Amino acid sequence: MSIMFERVAFIGIGLIGSSLARVIRRDGLARTIVASARSTETLDKVMNLGLADRVYADPADAVRDADLVVIATPLSAYAEIGARIGPALAPGAIVTDVGSVKGAVIRDLQAALPKSVHFIPGHPVAGTEHSGPQAGFAELFDGRWCILTPLPGTDPAALEKLSALWRSAGSKVVTMDPEHHDKVLAITSHLPHLIAYTIVGTAPDLEDTLKSEVINFSASGFRDFTRIAASDPVMWRDVFLGNRDAVLEMLQRFTEDLTALQRAIRWGEGDKLEELFTRTRAIRRSIIEAKQA
Amino acid sequence: MSIMFERVAFIGIGLIGSSLARVIRRDGLARTIVASARSTETLDKVMNLGLADRVYADPADAVRDADLVVIATPLSAYAEIGARIGPALAPGAIVTDVGSVKGAVIRDLQAALPKSVHFIPGHPVAGTEHSGPQAGFAELFDGRWCILTPLPGTDPAALEKLSALWRSAGSKVVTMDPEHHDKVLAITSHLPHLIAYTIVGTAPDLEDTLKSEVINFSASGFRDFTRIAASDPVMWRDVFLGNRDAVLEMLQRFTEDLTALQRAIRWGEGDKLEELFTRTRAIRRSIIEAKQA
Repeated sequence: MSIMFERVAFIGIGLIGSSLARVIRRDGLARTIVASARSTETLDKVMNLGLADRVYADPADAVRDADLVVIATPLSAYAEIGARIGPALAPGAIVTDVGSVKGAVIRDLQAALPKSVHFIPGHPVAGTEHSGPQAGFAELFDGRWCILTPLPGTDPAALEKLSALWRSAGSKVVTMDPEHHDKVLAITSHLPHLIAYTIVGTAPDLEDTLKSEVINFSASGFRDFTRIAASDPVMWRDVFLGNRDAVLEMLQRFTEDLTALQRAIRWGEGDKLEELFTRTRAIRRSIIEAKQA
Repeated sequence: MSIMFERVAFIGIGLIGSSLARVIRRDGLARTIVASARSTETLDKVMNLGLADRVYADPADAVRDADLVVIATPLSAYAEIGARIGPALAPGAIVTDVGSVKGAVIRDLQAALPKSVHFIPGHPVAGTEHSGPQAGFAELFDGRWCILTPLPGTDPAALEKLSALWRSAGSKVVTMDPEHHDKVLAITSHLPHLIAYTIVGTAPDLEDTLKSEVINFSASGFRDFTRIAASDPVMWRDVFLGNRDAVLEMLQRFTEDLTALQRAIRWGEGDKLEELFTRTRAIRRSIIEAKQA
């Protein structure tokens, strides 16, 4: 690949940011990579890992002269970052992010950014339960979706350039309305995480004799939830607060369905249980056919 | 290994039964393996796969002269099987099962079995989302727990013999009180399955535009639930009905915790969310340390 960007600035560089930085390094897509992060510890790690050429405590210094700015912090930092970097951004720069919520993001950032930059929110649908710049790897996005949620009037050339970057990372790029994105992710990602956090959180409240056995016998189903429930706590706090309405709506549907199932168990209605379990098995098959399994 | 049993009879031979039959074949642990199943289709498959030397439509014919009988059907068939095989069992035979619930099993079977046999309920904590005799494999139990729930007065020699069989399969054998088993599994296995079934069942009720995208973007969390929710429908129907009290109790705890979380999201209580998500991450680490991940 040839150079796509002169200077790429990462604001926040954990699992996702550092993985994209690794892709850019691997394929030589930028002349210079710089990064800003809140903690000195993270900045040291980034330099030691060779992920950036220069690091800055102040995000405004990082974005100066950058033609691509990638915001990859927890969502709750966006408003402050917007205020800091807004005046320092170069005209014509592409500003994007990697957050799991898009509606709130756009509200928080758009007002703070000058009209002379191309603001294109994004969400690579990929991750692991690990966090921090040392947890990233260039193959993280390979074969995974990257959802871009461009606003009305977005420059097609800038959108294509950002799409090309994600395709270099191996992603399948799709564009979507921000509100629709937030509904889709509420059911496919946010609700599953919320439920996994809940069930794993239920375990430590058990009597001691049960508690140690929950660990021992976790392979029977519980274990799959613990992997999900080990995801980054601050990132996920922000996701639930940022996508509150869609999450609460999906949670309401889930709770109604769970209550119906609870009633079927209490009253011994085996046919209702079997009918549901047969339907869910068919959904698994759709996912396998769609090659997402 | 040398021969441990003259004749092993499998009553029901799906994923679990056929995997154990494969272990017995592989290690030459029985002179003869026979099987009984409800459908001719299953019996044909078992013969074609070479899993048994002879198959029988009537479980009474299968258990005659067997020194080990393994009941590996859904739990709802146990009472009828007990009534059928009881009079045909050879004195001194070991009768065991592989069901995921133990309290109800013991109630259903014990009364029907003659006092001259050694009845030792068991539960290999292993499985996949596939079912049927073609889905089994000899390595299924390797490194996994097998819980035996012997009754008071069980013959130690019979218990040791059955334990040795499971150790040949690679299992770590542990004994437990049946009621305690049912509580442990309610939280580690039954509740996770119930929740996975519910969330996956919520998806098809969404509007059409969302539905196809749930499949496409399943990799963001939902997918892990679909694997669990693809497990055998009849087996799981019976588990929930058979372990009703413990499942309803754990479900109640889960619902309370979920409601608290829902409230925290609605009122923007980020500190409560972060605190829980930090705790659950630590539980994941315990599981990794216990080498169950």
